[in-house]
Amino acid sequence: MSEHVVVIGAIALGPKAACRFKRLHPKARVTMIDKNDTISYGGCGIPYFVAGEVSEPMQLRTTSFNMVRDKKFFKEVKGVDVFPITEAIRIDREKRHVHIRRLVSGETDVLPYDKLVLATGSTPRKLSLPGENLKGVHYVSSPYDAVRIRDAITKGIVKKAIVVGAGFIGLEMAEAFADMWDVETTVIEIADQIMPRYLSKKLARMGQRHMEKNGVSFHLNETVDRFEGEGRVKRVVTNKGIVDADIVVISVGVTPNDDLAKEAGLQLSERGGIVVDEHMQTSDPNIYAGGDCVVIKNLVTNQPFYLPMGSMANRQGRVIGTNLAGGNARFDGATGSFVCKLFESSVAGTGLCRNVAEQMGYDVLSVLLVQFDRAHFYPTKELMTLELVVDKFTSRILGIQGFGSYGDAMVGRINAVAGLLKNQPKVEDISNFEMAYSPPFSAAMDILNTLGNMADNALAGMNRGLGPAEFETFWEQHKESNFFLDCREPADAEPYLKKYPEDWHNIPQGKISQRLAEIPMDKTVVLICNTGGRSYEAQITLDENGFDDVINLHGGIAGLKSWGMDI
Amino acid sequence: MSEHVVVIGAIALGPKAACRFKRLHPKARVTMIDKNDTISYGGCGIPYFVAGEVSEPMQLRTTSFNMVRDKKFFKEVKGVDVFPITEAIRIDREKRHVHIRRLVSGETDVLPYDKLVLATGSTPRKLSLPGENLKGVHYVSSPYDAVRIRDAITKGIVKKAIVVGAGFIGLEMAEAFADMWDVETTVIEIADQIMPRYLSKKLARMGQRHMEKNGVSFHLNETVDRFEGEGRVKRVVTNKGIVDADIVVISVGVTPNDDLAKEAGLQLSERGGIVVDEHMQTSDPNIYAGGDCVVIKNLVTNQPFYLPMGSMANRQGRVIGTNLAGGNARFDGATGSFVCKLFESSVAGTGLCRNVAEQMGYDVLSVLLVQFDRAHFYPTKELMTLELVVDKFTSRILGIQGFGSYGDAMVGRINAVAGLLKNQPKVEDISNFEMAYSPPFSAAMDILNTLGNMADNALAGMNRGLGPAEFETFWEQHKESNFFLDCREPADAEPYLKKYPEDWHNIPQGKISQRLAEIPMDKTVVLICNTGGRSYEAQITLDENGFDDVINLHGGIAGLKSWGMDI
Repeated sequence: MSEHVVVIGAIALGPKAACRFKRLHPKARVTMIDKNDTISYGGCGIPYFVAGEVSEPMQLRTTSFNMVRDKKFFKEVKGVDVFPITEAIRIDREKRHVHIRRLVSGETDVLPYDKLVLATGSTPRKLSLPGENLKGVHYVSSPYDAVRIRDAITKGIVKKAIVVGAGFIGLEMAEAFADMWDVETTVIEIADQIMPRYLSKKLARMGQRHMEKNGVSFHLNETVDRFEGEGRVKRVVTNKGIVDADIVVISVGVTPNDDLAKEAGLQLSERGGIVVDEHMQTSDPNIYAGGDCVVIKNLVTNQPFYLPMGSMANRQGRVIGTNLAGGNARFDGATGSFVCKLFESSVAGTGLCRNVAEQMGYDVLSVLLVQFDRAHFYPTKELMTLELVVDKFTSRILGIQGFGSYGDAMVGRINAVAGLLKNQPKVEDISNFEMAYSPPFSAAMDILNTLGNMADNALAGMNRGLGPAEFETFWEQHKESNFFLDCREPADAEPYLKKYPEDWHNIPQGKISQRLAEIPMDKTVVLICNTGGRSYEAQITLDENGFDDVINLHGGIAGLKSWGMDI
Repeated sequence: MSEHVVVIGAIALGPKAACRFKRLHPKARVTMIDKNDTISYGGCGIPYFVAGEVSEPMQLRTTSFNMVRDKKFFKEVKGVDVFPITEAIRIDREKRHVHIRRLVSGETDVLPYDKLVLATGSTPRKLSLPGENLKGVHYVSSPYDAVRIRDAITKGIVKKAIVVGAGFIGLEMAEAFADMWDVETTVIEIADQIMPRYLSKKLARMGQRHMEKNGVSFHLNETVDRFEGEGRVKRVVTNKGIVDADIVVISVGVTPNDDLAKEAGLQLSERGGIVVDEHMQTSDPNIYAGGDCVVIKNLVTNQPFYLPMGSMANRQGRVIGTNLAGGNARFDGATGSFVCKLFESSVAGTGLCRNVAEQMGYDVLSVLLVQFDRAHFYPTKELMTLELVVDKFTSRILGIQGFGSYGDAMVGRINAVAGLLKNQPKVEDISNFEMAYSPPFSAAMDILNTLGNMADNALAGMNRGLGPAEFETFWEQHKESNFFLDCREPADAEPYLKKYPEDWHNIPQGKISQRLAEIPMDKTVVLICNTGGRSYEAQITLDENGFDDVINLHGGIAGLKSWGMDI
């Protein structure tokens, strides 16, 4: 049991750890310091404040019962002493002292501690490019940034916005500009897709397409060279050209604030971030750390993992609070669950996406499925796309990602799999996943089950498919040498038959076995239906009849449309 | 590898097993028989057809690409021979023969099989009461019933409907009558709550209240004695009185159709239902069975378990199809996930509810939590109620149930836990559950995490609470002898202070430590806030200051309101 606990950092993890500890040990003394005046805010809400959906910045600082989480609140309601505008400048681990500086007066002081909590958070990664200090160029990390950005918008001086970086925050900011304020918005991203560490190219392109339909432009494979303007930013110069801008938001990731820990000799990860064990204890047993300044274990790869999210900070904070009071709470790690609203759609995932799994050396199989989110006879329903990433060798699930509407249906499937992931599920665990069933909520064979079945069939070599990207290439480059067979009913195939009289063919799946003579045996047969189900059945019929070069379009025409092929 | 597979029953499991097997083994012969003419329909859609949300009965029989799943469809598209209106009358296991009768001609015949699949389904449980054969008294199992019921409604002869049985189908039918057709609807249930095997009394009452607000009346603790009328039903006589009715729907559960299996000497469960192993094989290795005619393993209790749901049938059907083809697919069992839409709300759950867990002899702790489904600062959000059922002795999760809006947010939390259940999760697995986080989808500390934390605190004796039912009793019987302390801000407490000037007291939680003298030490102190969070903090303060009889209202005022206490 500790007597005096000092907490450095008062945004998310710090307050959570402090308050949990005080609840368990009300007589103990807890002192929390923070460099800034504004503490304990929901930074993840910033894009929604900029958008205007959250009307007052204060809403990001209030409890669910509308009390502002300020110094007074922590003192009166939680029994925690807070020193804002106070910086920790050095930790003396031997004496158990934190040396601090009051930033207003410049005075220094020493806080003795029994246990210390490092909740120092992260800093936006800087580009350090010419012109970065121009007015109108922003990083997004505190409510101050948010207020400045929204002020600029509401003053009407922003007609064109540029967001640098197509990660979560970048895309959320782009939506805020374009959706609520009708600002002409361009996202510049160095990679060849949005969210490169989180989504496969296919799903990324579906998300991008949806944002483009809502007015956001994307410049991929593009790097920013400098910002130009006089006093205020007017344009962004990239390796490919010049883009005009009245405001620039840079959101290219964050780095852990681990200097204090480093100087104190605590163990850091190779790539930065404080190393903690499953009790959130650093290499010094008197010092705990958590939130954006630590690395945790990735429960899929068992590798160190940096996952700076408010949800991590809150859950880890409670674990620290418990352990400060002599408890034995554990935080084993994470699988990297995420969700991001993009206008009327959303992307979400957990575990490894195809790209990352391949980079890590897994022999990857991934399948893409488009299916309704509830019973197909239920009147209100929407198509959802899920991609399952499987290790071919063990049939172990490595991850799942999706693109769907902005409701809770798609992320619900992701969360369901997230719960399984740390127990190393196999494909059959997805095939048999027990989704609660009722027509207004799911299909009897839910999309998740069908996705597992599809992976099972693919592993068995029965469902050999290609995704929308490969299809597009195939179509554009090899239209003549391949045989594109639409196996839907004639009414569905008709528009395509008219548009491509030479290259598009139609035999409904149920008629294929009687019309085999119409299908050439010396060409690659590409089977097409609405979502990939009937084309899979057609593939079996052709396999059975001696055709040895048959592939089917995963996700079908519906997948092509989401992905954005103009066919 | 089988050469001729015979499938008895062509609704859900039968077709799934037959088609999966044919895909794996296209050259094999599959014959599927069914007593009825109408096959392969989505029986779970019947209430939505009666409601009119599904406009044509045929929609329950079509694929997602609008092909009717009839005899011709199975022959042409799936390569499966179907004999409708054909009954299996006996199985000769030694000769591997099924004796059948063509119901139209009366002819009998013999179908030899290599492997047999029993997909005989279930039959609605009959009440066998006087008047049950009157016109207008219906059981709900086939599309024919559905058409008859909807015909009666659309003819305008139905002003008053009675539903006997407050299970899933009963409640869905009640909603269909009341919501879409403005029929005065009464549900009669023998138990003292709706869904007694699935929900605790608290959650059941929240669901019931919501249905009452939408015009459905409930007669609980009531048994039907007889139906009366001349030719057509006019009233229902119960042990408590007479209720007028133009139509009656009886939905009091189903029983497995296991006669054929019983006569063939296959192993049955004590309470009925065919026993199968994890490969869905019966006690005869040449015979598989699944769907509504079998019992499976409950993965929480390891006991036999009857779960007649279309989703089970579909998933088990695929397992059977794989194994018929020589595969080794498994269906380990289920935890009993369910969801049911009730007007603009829904109830859902998985595992054991409090009632059932207690009946089974577990030493149960359950906690009830009311919280927003997304970040509290996000503009569109709704309150959700979840109840976690825990084994006190091991802190193992036995189940979770919820009441929420009719969207996917609440059932998403249930499905997330369903994935964990078979791995015997502990409370800490809920506290640390990795819900994908973004303000439009969840809170940084999601309701599921808070629920786990609440159970953890309750197990530790820190959060000692009472639910809405116990609170109501406490309030009504012991208003004077207890001290009811509202620990919200004065503005929230004011209406209650005015209404109950003698019995309601208010000290905001943050002020309690300074105003301890106002709280009597010789009374039970009942702490109240909006959802139970602040009252828990207040409890810690009082504990710390020597008060030894303090309890707090789980779910707070929000929970009382959902539950329906008029305070």
